[in-house]
Amino acid sequence: MPFSSKLIENAVNAFSGLPGVGRKTALRLALHLMRQPPEVSEQFAEAVLKMRREIKACSVCHNLSDDPICGICSDARRDRSVICVVESIRDVMAIEDTSQYRGLYHVLGGVISPIDGVGPDDLNVDSLLQRATNGETQEIIMAVSPTIEGETTIFYLSKKLRETNVKVSTIARGVSFGGELEYADEVTLGRSIVARIPYRNE
Amino acid sequence: MPFSSKLIENAVNAFSGLPGVGRKTALRLALHLMRQPPEVSEQFAEAVLKMRREIKACSVCHNLSDDPICGICSDARRDRSVICVVESIRDVMAIEDTSQYRGLYHVLGGVISPIDGVGPDDLNVDSLLQRATNGETQEIIMAVSPTIEGETTIFYLSKKLRETNVKVSTIARGVSFGGELEYADEVTLGRSIVARIPYRNE
Repeated sequence: MPFSSKLIENAVNAFSGLPGVGRKTALRLALHLMRQPPEVSEQFAEAVLKMRREIKACSVCHNLSDDPICGICSDARRDRSVICVVESIRDVMAIEDTSQYRGLYHVLGGVISPIDGVGPDDLNVDSLLQRATNGETQEIIMAVSPTIEGETTIFYLSKKLRETNVKVSTIARGVSFGGELEYADEVTLGRSIVARIPYRNE
Repeated sequence: MPFSSKLIENAVNAFSGLPGVGRKTALRLALHLMRQPPEVSEQFAEAVLKMRREIKACSVCHNLSDDPICGICSDARRDRSVICVVESIRDVMAIEDTSQYRGLYHVLGGVISPIDGVGPDDLNVDSLLQRATNGETQEIIMAVSPTIEGETTIFYLSKKLRETNVKVSTIARGVSFGGELEYADEVTLGRSIVARIPYRNE
């Protein structure tokens, strides 16, 4: 792509460093900002800078937060006896979106994956073990992706947690609500038959 | 989407203001920057700010440029007798990419579109008419999209240019090279038969 301006080339390079943004899309984004009033670019750059400079990880659950302790951990109305273990803050947001959970969270920061060189020491495991023995925690729910890496992580954590009095559970796996059985993948369908549950007429 | 941090919410709002970026993608981009070293975000924001603050429009052809006159207009090796009229700087880049054109450009900044409230006064028309009578210009090529608005613009400009001695042409329209005839749209195929050209055995 022949650029008439080094400045626009730099901006295109910056945008195309983002995941899923190719050079054509990057150019479209840069030219969009060029067409907007200068304030739009100023606010855009400031939002990015402030986010990166000022955001903190919650010292309790490692969720991203504006304060040393995040809004969920400091919310007195939340159930402090349950901790939901997730990989990333996106999972926190996905679960919060369901409005079905009122407990606390613990963000691992990934899953154990020897291929990617991620071991237990790279994850927020120690702080989870500490929280498990703080006297308040009664149950830890593993809400980790049902992949090989996820299962390995659950296995590792549940082994570590065995010495505590905390109950360990995983989120339910099975066919999706609203989905057609014939389109469910065979592993999910097979396991959902093996792990069938008694019908409750509520 | 429940955000645990106002800072990340602001950044997501900034990203999702860009064209084609939804809130989920915006969150992915923001979290990507959070995972990178702080320098990445600093450079990203600086590239955007510098682009918007320092970039200029070429005073001759209105192409975006780092200098008052762009690299194409100031290049002595370019053919100064031909001006190619385009809608936007993306079209300049697309034509430059073909390496088939060695003349100058004129960026209109859009096309005449009464529905969108864009009239000739909103486009760089006056400067084109001035360039047409500068003594150097012999031909003006209309490389505007073959849409109703584009055709209207070409019609308007060619009428304005009739009083000058400049030859006006449009880029060739017809079936694409390498395309199957049966997949060409019927307007293009029909017009390409009406506007057939003598076969040159080169």
